[in-house]
Amino acid sequence: MKIVITGGGGFIGRKLARALLARPEVSRLVLLDAAFPVPLAPEARLETVRADLSDERSLARAIAADTDALFHLAAVVSGAAEADFDLGMRVNVDGMRAVLERLRRCARPPRVVYASSIAAFGGALPDVLDDATVPTPQTSYGTQKVIGEYLLADYTRKGFLDGRSLRLPTIVVRAGSANAAASGFASAVIREPLAGREYDCPVGPETAMWLLSSRRCVEALLHAASLPSALWGPARVVNLPGICARIGEMVEALARIAGPDVAARVRYRPDPHIQAIVRTWPARFRTPRADAMGFRADADVDAILRDYISEEGIRL
Amino acid sequence: MKIVITGGGGFIGRKLARALLARPEVSRLVLLDAAFPVPLAPEARLETVRADLSDERSLARAIAADTDALFHLAAVVSGAAEADFDLGMRVNVDGMRAVLERLRRCARPPRVVYASSIAAFGGALPDVLDDATVPTPQTSYGTQKVIGEYLLADYTRKGFLDGRSLRLPTIVVRAGSANAAASGFASAVIREPLAGREYDCPVGPETAMWLLSSRRCVEALLHAASLPSALWGPARVVNLPGICARIGEMVEALARIAGPDVAARVRYRPDPHIQAIVRTWPARFRTPRADAMGFRADADVDAILRDYISEEGIRL
Repeated sequence: MKIVITGGGGFIGRKLARALLARPEVSRLVLLDAAFPVPLAPEARLETVRADLSDERSLARAIAADTDALFHLAAVVSGAAEADFDLGMRVNVDGMRAVLERLRRCARPPRVVYASSIAAFGGALPDVLDDATVPTPQTSYGTQKVIGEYLLADYTRKGFLDGRSLRLPTIVVRAGSANAAASGFASAVIREPLAGREYDCPVGPETAMWLLSSRRCVEALLHAASLPSALWGPARVVNLPGICARIGEMVEALARIAGPDVAARVRYRPDPHIQAIVRTWPARFRTPRADAMGFRADADVDAILRDYISEEGIRL
Repeated sequence: MKIVITGGGGFIGRKLARALLARPEVSRLVLLDAAFPVPLAPEARLETVRADLSDERSLARAIAADTDALFHLAAVVSGAAEADFDLGMRVNVDGMRAVLERLRRCARPPRVVYASSIAAFGGALPDVLDDATVPTPQTSYGTQKVIGEYLLADYTRKGFLDGRSLRLPTIVVRAGSANAAASGFASAVIREPLAGREYDCPVGPETAMWLLSSRRCVEALLHAASLPSALWGPARVVNLPGICARIGEMVEALARIAGPDVAARVRYRPDPHIQAIVRTWPARFRTPRADAMGFRADADVDAILRDYISEEGIRL
């Protein structure tokens, strides 16, 4: 199996790469990204291509004609795409189209797993969303993700490739430094206090989020690639399971697991700009389609925190 | 009012232009199209620009900085976009983006009315669609129209323009010659017999369609432009009212109005290629949103036929 990960230098891309390299059937893994802040250890099967999605030559090198599967994770994240509309369009729409056009030229239609987002939804929403909720994104990032879903579905229908879109919940806990995602606080509110730093949370404790751990996210990406094409039907997209939790509940879990002194490092300092974006996001779903397909959520907030602490080797 | 119509040389564009020129408040009307098979009579307020949407210089000339409103009708139609995927993407997605980018540079955010289509829907559909039905297009044309809707909504949300998308039913009866729309038979089955010609209908009489007359279509485009922005809310799209009729019912109406000899010129010669596309289209909607906004359907099939006969000055 010859596999490509766009955004392979990012937080999830790197975890996915490690999971793929643990599988003997993966004979080649190409990571494509604009930056590799924490490179993986070199090995014969692994190639890294440092390039922008607009660089056609690098794209052609990364996505060889014998590519079996591609995970499309590369994106300008929500905060950045809202701040710079043109950049978001260039990477999230034009960059995706460039990737799809390369894939279309492969010898056999490759499997393509696309990291879409619950930012597809927004505005006046029901309390609980489900598989029949119409996407009405209220950010440019969400709009661009929905456009990507429709492109992937039509490329699939035309037989150019075999696409599967996952609407990812907010992924927590991101290790390392924050990115420009407006949802960054959901990770920082755990990561920063655990690292011994004070944290000014830009949303209030009552803010509810739809969450998935990075471990479950990687499992979902791999599971999406493994499912038979027919199971997806004409709608190539699924809302992933997650758990609904308020930020205050996350801080309470932190107090339970790491102690009240650690949790006390969080202070609430609402930022109207961030709150305005987050307020448009959905916090609770019913996911019968994903459940039937075998996708799984985390047990609870405590499980997500314990998972992060163990994966990162944090000593309490 | 300074107004632009893309696709202004087409069947609907031309009718819309005539309706706009009848209004004294329209001080300039620019028609942009790749072809003008039946040009309008010249007049001081009217300018025609013959160009492709990819021609940036012509686009800049047509969409001047003081443009107040634009009707975006130009498109590669369903049959052609299915036969040539790249052409459809170039005109229906890239061409629309070029138009939106010009509009973004206007002095004040112009009103933009976008001709989307019920081809936004397809696949496994409920018997009756409504405003909450998720678009799952099963043609490239439908996919490209949905992408256009999402782009228009985000450009609106960003304040670049004030967009309104109408999902048009199949418009009947198209005068003149057929275009490459897969739905062309719905017009030809009336137009050809009335013109004294035999017609081989590529779908069976049981084929149900969601129909709107060209008169009501032009009324809807004008009405969409006239509504206050706040009425549209964050979802800038509406399914238009129409009537559900089987092709056989249309031929029966033709027999009633023009005589059984005229109706006898229709023969059913199903074409699997056309039937495969049409089978994915919806035939019946509930349209409470459009109804509340004041959009109106035709009374019945007879009314649509009589309207066509009177507008075209056909002698029975």
